[in-house]
Amino acid sequence: MAMADPQTVGQVGELGLLKRLFQYCADGMVGDDAAVLEVPPHQRLVVTTDVLVDGVHFSDRTTAAGDVGWRAVAANLSDLAAMGAIPLGITVGLSLPGTTALAWVEQLYDGMAACLKIWGGAVIGGDLCRSETISVAITALGSAAPDQLLYRHTAQPGQLILATGYHGLSRAGLELLLQPEQGQALDPADRDRWIRAHCRPNPRLDAIALLRSLLRDINLDAVSIAAMDSSDGLANAVLHLCQASGCGARLWPSHLPLDPALVAWVGPAQALDWCLYGGEDFELLLCLPAAIAQSLELQLGQGSAIIGQVTQASSVILEPDPAWSTSGLELTFTGGFQHF
Amino acid sequence: MAMADPQTVGQVGELGLLKRLFQYCADGMVGDDAAVLEVPPHQRLVVTTDVLVDGVHFSDRTTAAGDVGWRAVAANLSDLAAMGAIPLGITVGLSLPGTTALAWVEQLYDGMAACLKIWGGAVIGGDLCRSETISVAITALGSAAPDQLLYRHTAQPGQLILATGYHGLSRAGLELLLQPEQGQALDPADRDRWIRAHCRPNPRLDAIALLRSLLRDINLDAVSIAAMDSSDGLANAVLHLCQASGCGARLWPSHLPLDPALVAWVGPAQALDWCLYGGEDFELLLCLPAAIAQSLELQLGQGSAIIGQVTQASSVILEPDPAWSTSGLELTFTGGFQHF
Repeated sequence: MAMADPQTVGQVGELGLLKRLFQYCADGMVGDDAAVLEVPPHQRLVVTTDVLVDGVHFSDRTTAAGDVGWRAVAANLSDLAAMGAIPLGITVGLSLPGTTALAWVEQLYDGMAACLKIWGGAVIGGDLCRSETISVAITALGSAAPDQLLYRHTAQPGQLILATGYHGLSRAGLELLLQPEQGQALDPADRDRWIRAHCRPNPRLDAIALLRSLLRDINLDAVSIAAMDSSDGLANAVLHLCQASGCGARLWPSHLPLDPALVAWVGPAQALDWCLYGGEDFELLLCLPAAIAQSLELQLGQGSAIIGQVTQASSVILEPDPAWSTSGLELTFTGGFQHF
Repeated sequence: MAMADPQTVGQVGELGLLKRLFQYCADGMVGDDAAVLEVPPHQRLVVTTDVLVDGVHFSDRTTAAGDVGWRAVAANLSDLAAMGAIPLGITVGLSLPGTTALAWVEQLYDGMAACLKIWGGAVIGGDLCRSETISVAITALGSAAPDQLLYRHTAQPGQLILATGYHGLSRAGLELLLQPEQGQALDPADRDRWIRAHCRPNPRLDAIALLRSLLRDINLDAVSIAAMDSSDGLANAVLHLCQASGCGARLWPSHLPLDPALVAWVGPAQALDWCLYGGEDFELLLCLPAAIAQSLELQLGQGSAIIGQVTQASSVILEPDPAWSTSGLELTFTGGFQHF
C-alpha cells in the first residue's frame, strides 16, 4: 500500500486545525472570545511574551517541531522564573503557511504540552493565522506574592552572583547539530546532554522553589535579591543586572560555570566565549547575600556556581587569571545576540 | 537640502528600536524579564490573543501603519468586551524585516496608543524580532467580576438577539479603499464614516458599560446573557452563539442593522451579504431577555438593532421577507472568513 501524502494545514483548513489543537487546551478554556483565569488571592500577575520565528530562532536543520514548541514555552517560563513567579498558563499566537505539514503543528503542540506538564501551566488560548513565515508568539502568565517578586534593579554591592547551572551547553549543542561529524570522538553522554541543552532547555523554576524554601528556613526579613535569566548569555545578564542596579561586578574566571567536558572538547578560550556569550542556556543569574548564595549553590549542586561579586564600580570586570589567559577584561554587551 | 533617507529598523538596530518603543510602554513595566500587574481583588483575569499578518489582515495598499496598530488593539479589546471585561493592558509580539521603515513602527505604536487611550489599558510588555513577514501578535488582559462574565453558551430560547451597531460598514470601507473611484458619487460623510469603520473600528466596551448600568438599575437576579463579538461577521457570531448554547434562531431581514446609505449605494442584496458575512465590524451580538434588549437598543441608539429571537430549533433561519427577496434562508458559516 502506498503511503498517503502527508496532510497539510491548508488541506484540513482553519476549523479542521483548530479542532485538533483544542485537545491541547485546558478544559473549558476555549470556545469563547477570551479565556478566564483565576489569579490566586493576594498575588500579582506576571506577564511575558516571546516570539520565535522560523529561520531566525529555529530551522528544520537543527530543530524538530517538538523542540521548537518546548523551547518556546521554556523561554517564556524562564522569564517567569526570573521574576520569582509560578506559571498559570500560556496563549499561543501561531502563524503558518498553508503548506505546513499537519504533523509539524501537532508535534509543536506536543512539545509545548510536554514542557508545561513538567513545569506547570496550560494552554489557555491562542490565535491561528496564515503567513509566509512560521512564527510562534507565546505569552505566559504567572503569579507571585508581591514580596516574592524578583527584579533586576535590586542588586547591592557586596552581594555574590550565582549562576544556577553550566553556561555554553546550548551553544555546544547547536554546534553538534550543525556539524555532527565534530562530535564523533565525544562521549555520547556529553554529546546528548549538550544537544538536549539546546533542544529541551529547562526553565529554572526549581531553583526559585529552592530559594523560596531557603528564605523561609532562614526567616530573614527583607532580603534584597536581584534576578534575570540568561537567555541572551551570561555576560548580557550580569551587565543588565548591574546596569539596572547602578553598580558593577567582578567575575572570577576560575569560578565560571564551565562544563569540564566542554572545556576539554573545544579548549578554554572557546568554552569561555560560549559560556559568556553563547546564550539560550535559560539559567538564572541571582545577586544574593553571601550566606544565601552559598546555601543555594550547595543545594543546586553540579553546574551551579558563585561566579563573582557585585561592586560599587560601574563596569563588569573579568578578573585577571593566568589559567584562563584573561587579563582584567571589561565585559560588554557585544557578542550578545542582537536582532536586525 | 536633500531629504535624508528614511531610517530603517535595521539601521537603528534592536536596542535602538527598543529604546524608541519604551516611550509607548506603561511606566515601570519594562526593564525586567516580565511585567507585573495587579488584578483588582475578587476579579477574574480575562485573556485573549490575536495575530495580524502583513498581506493577510492588512496591506500597505489599504492600511496605514497607525490603522494597523489601532485595529490590532481594537480586535483584542473587542474580545474582552464580548466577555464583559475591562482592559488592563496588552503585550505586543512584533516581527519585522530589517528593511521596515522606523517611521512605520512608530506609527504602528501611535495607533495602538491612540486606541488604548480611548478604551483603556496600556502596553505592558512585548518582544521584538526579525522576520521576513511583518506580524503583530497582541495578547490583551482584562478583568471582570465572576458574575459579570459573558459567555457564548448561555443563550436561551425566547431571548432576543441584539446587534450593537450597523454591520457591513467595514467591508464597505475596504471596497472604497481598494477602488476609490467607486465612491466619487457618495456623500463624503458616508464615505469617510465607512473608511473609518474599516481603519479605526471601535471595540464596544461602551455597550458593555451601558448593559452593566442597565442591569444594576433593574436589579434583576441571575440574568442569563450570551455574547460574542462579530469580528468574523454577524452570521458567524449568531451561528457560534447558537451552536454553543444548543439552540437556534430566527432573524428578521427588515430588522438587520443595515445602514440605509449603504443599501442605497450597493443595493439590498450586496448590503445584506456584507452585513451578514463582511466581518471586521467588531460589534457585539448579545442574547438577552426582551425587556433588557429593548432598553439597551434604545440607549445604544442609531445602528443598534434587535435582529431576531433565539429558538429551540437547531438552525439559524433568515425569515422570508419579500422586501429583501429572502425566502427562509438557512444561514451557514460559509461566506465567513476562513484562513488557509
